[in-house]
Amino acid sequence: MTTPIIGSIESIAATAAAAAPLFAATPPRARAVALVTVADLLIANADDLITIGMSETGLSEQRLRGELKRTAVQLCLFAEAIADGAYMDVRIDRRDPEFVLGVRPDLRRSLVPRGPVLNYAGSNFPFAFSVAGGDSAAALAAGCPVILKAHSGHPLLSEATAAIVIAGLTAAGMPVGTFQLVAGQAKGVALLKDDRIRAGSFTGSLRAGRLLADLAAARARPIPFFGELGSVNPVYALPSFFRSDEDAAALAAGYASSVAGSAGQLCTKPGFLFVPATSLDAVASAAASAVASVPEHRLLNSSIAAGFSARRAAILSTPGITIVASGSLRTDSEEQVWATPTIVATSAEALELAGETLLDEAFGPLSIVVGYPDESELACLAERLFPGNLTSTVYAAADDSTATLTGLFHTLAETSGRVLFGGWPTGVAVTPAMQHGGPWPATTSDNGTSVGTAAITRFLRAVAYQDMPQQLLPPELRDDNPWGVPQNIAAAGESVSWGDSFNVA
Amino acid sequence: MTTPIIGSIESIAATAAAAAPLFAATPPRARAVALVTVADLLIANADDLITIGMSETGLSEQRLRGELKRTAVQLCLFAEAIADGAYMDVRIDRRDPEFVLGVRPDLRRSLVPRGPVLNYAGSNFPFAFSVAGGDSAAALAAGCPVILKAHSGHPLLSEATAAIVIAGLTAAGMPVGTFQLVAGQAKGVALLKDDRIRAGSFTGSLRAGRLLADLAAARARPIPFFGELGSVNPVYALPSFFRSDEDAAALAAGYASSVAGSAGQLCTKPGFLFVPATSLDAVASAAASAVASVPEHRLLNSSIAAGFSARRAAILSTPGITIVASGSLRTDSEEQVWATPTIVATSAEALELAGETLLDEAFGPLSIVVGYPDESELACLAERLFPGNLTSTVYAAADDSTATLTGLFHTLAETSGRVLFGGWPTGVAVTPAMQHGGPWPATTSDNGTSVGTAAITRFLRAVAYQDMPQQLLPPELRDDNPWGVPQNIAAAGESVSWGDSFNVA
Repeated sequence: MTTPIIGSIESIAATAAAAAPLFAATPPRARAVALVTVADLLIANADDLITIGMSETGLSEQRLRGELKRTAVQLCLFAEAIADGAYMDVRIDRRDPEFVLGVRPDLRRSLVPRGPVLNYAGSNFPFAFSVAGGDSAAALAAGCPVILKAHSGHPLLSEATAAIVIAGLTAAGMPVGTFQLVAGQAKGVALLKDDRIRAGSFTGSLRAGRLLADLAAARARPIPFFGELGSVNPVYALPSFFRSDEDAAALAAGYASSVAGSAGQLCTKPGFLFVPATSLDAVASAAASAVASVPEHRLLNSSIAAGFSARRAAILSTPGITIVASGSLRTDSEEQVWATPTIVATSAEALELAGETLLDEAFGPLSIVVGYPDESELACLAERLFPGNLTSTVYAAADDSTATLTGLFHTLAETSGRVLFGGWPTGVAVTPAMQHGGPWPATTSDNGTSVGTAAITRFLRAVAYQDMPQQLLPPELRDDNPWGVPQNIAAAGESVSWGDSFNVA
Repeated sequence: MTTPIIGSIESIAATAAAAAPLFAATPPRARAVALVTVADLLIANADDLITIGMSETGLSEQRLRGELKRTAVQLCLFAEAIADGAYMDVRIDRRDPEFVLGVRPDLRRSLVPRGPVLNYAGSNFPFAFSVAGGDSAAALAAGCPVILKAHSGHPLLSEATAAIVIAGLTAAGMPVGTFQLVAGQAKGVALLKDDRIRAGSFTGSLRAGRLLADLAAARARPIPFFGELGSVNPVYALPSFFRSDEDAAALAAGYASSVAGSAGQLCTKPGFLFVPATSLDAVASAAASAVASVPEHRLLNSSIAAGFSARRAAILSTPGITIVASGSLRTDSEEQVWATPTIVATSAEALELAGETLLDEAFGPLSIVVGYPDESELACLAERLFPGNLTSTVYAAADDSTATLTGLFHTLAETSGRVLFGGWPTGVAVTPAMQHGGPWPATTSDNGTSVGTAAITRFLRAVAYQDMPQQLLPPELRDDNPWGVPQNIAAAGESVSWGDSFNVA
């Protein structure tokens, strides 16, 4: 198996830049085959990868097996998404001597890869948001060489996975330098400033993400930076949902499970559960019971453990807070930190008074149940307190269509990338219709998604050709269409059927 | 006719924010009708508008009549582009209990308007890149309220046009506040910092565009900023093009006409014409003849005149420059500045030595003919000197398919938004396949275009709904599809036919 290249900034950037035109020229079907080859290799090496991953992250075997499968499926979904070339959005306007504004030249436009992408891995999904994760899959699918900045939380797994990615790409005939691994913050920052890097992607904290986004924007030549940062994923249970005592218990059980899974170290963990003040006690006590049986879970790394410990202490000492389940934090003999879920309760009024002490994301197994007095205030509350989230969730009766509910959904659509009716935001489906993004601070750039096949377009730019001879056009724009991509063709005389005022002038 | 609202920052932002949800909820077909209504009114008021425009800008009646027609047609093209709702990119993944990664929920995703857009008008197209121009048309088509920052170069025309836009939108039933006009740099900057503004668009200088882009990126909540800035639009004539003496003369005549039109005050004016050193004298002398008969043309405003005068003086005094046609600059009794074209010649070596003195855009009727010794060096030269342009143009024999030519085209596609074979970059067709954008410094964000119907997507963001009851979904995502938009539906069991490795894990 090929060892990942770990070289100087100069050699890494130069290698990616040299690979860019060669990789960009590969037919989409060839890149699709390469992605499936990588997926096959990941699965073939699952046992080794999962052993390393368990040791480095403390995540369970079941969780990591599921995540690796998801990562492989994700690569195959991207392969499917690009294979027919529809993602290139090919538009051909044939020459039209009779065009209403004068002779229209032959114009042909397609989406092409941006060039080398610098992708910063996340720590909490060591497969699905790391070396071979969604951002890498999307950039490779688009035809962009990837430089993967490994997360310090799982260095050995990063190296092992990168070796597999490189082996798969090489076996499928992709150019040398299509994928490279780098480690260390200094390299990550220096590369982002290199003119040869044409886009950045990132999964991680608000602080680091904003710092990198600002660097990308401040370059002499600015580049797009797609950062997925913080999200508290509020859940709103409306009075119409509570029709029996079982409803409160079922809600609390699902909530506890969503908060506790992977020790709450998920970007879609529900950080707040809003319930009618009259149901607060019932939900809180059911949640306390539900988390009581949750076993200790190791936190991913010392940095996350320190951050969680500080946030938890700050929240527990905030006025107006009631402890529902205090949870536990324990450091073992190997300096690993283990936790059980902490749940607190408060009122909407106290939450607003406390401000960011309570409102900022607490990354880890902690969540806040909030009692609200009046459902008609939820939409305004959501807009004021939560301007940008990956997800927002509503529980209500399935036949509820009151103005209060529709108004709330309107606000949630404005402030979230994904809006759920029932269910829990954790467990993000990898499908064409997924949107994993959202207004700031959920992401730095909310016109993209980092999960689902729509993620490809972040790494593309458009080029149009005017009056080019056939032999000089890229394959997807030629009349003989050798790749068989869908071509959206406007023939002469077909344009502008709307309105006729312009014939007057 | 309604008078444009000119109020305080607070009232303008609040009005746009209040209009946003109402305008977003209008069916695409209703917005299409509104755009055509505006187009009709513009044409109906053409005589008045053109009289004001001629007086304020010095552009000719013929040019302004053509531009107004183009602006009206552009509105109608956007109307056509949105009417069927395909631009929403609706994706529906039906619930799939057998999905390979576990039960897949019902997920439905569409593109929705970002919210209020602040659009800074350009000075050089007082219709097509101003109040009712491409960016306004695209944002309105997307369903975003527009706040139009008028250019100081044509204040009366801006007010008259805004009154027509507002009257048209009102007549078509669009919400109050869908379109507002503001004037003054201070207001333009203050609004860009207002949290209720969700995107910016701009046509103008590199300096002002970068300043605004930096402000947008530095906001507590950053927003996308689509600026179209500077471009020098190099033209490369290869030896294979020159087969007779007439070829040099024809090239020079087309060049002179493209440089002289609208006094060179176009973002696509060819700033450089590269010819083989052996053809330099022939092309230069033919260009001198061609511009000799060009009459004086008024420059748009005092700021552009001052900038042009300074750039021209700097270029004329640069070592290694030969004057082909010195051109003229004259200030009349009303302080208007009039110019005829200036053409200079130099060598590729001297151009590179002079650096930005020659390389920076000279906005106005000035262009540089460059003699190059060896066509095989053109691709490297283009990459070094011109990293980002709206357009690049090549003249070569139609059957030329040498490696030199294909290599050059590869570089031009990497560094330009539009690549032409023959013809001239001025005169930008408004069609689905147009790309009017390009790598920095041509634009601040090269994944968009500011001409052509692909411009709409800049003002959209995606929202996904999970397991929503039908009555709570937006119309475009419902099963009964009341707007009849194209829906891309993935039924249960249809996903992931590529690869089968993931069944192994």
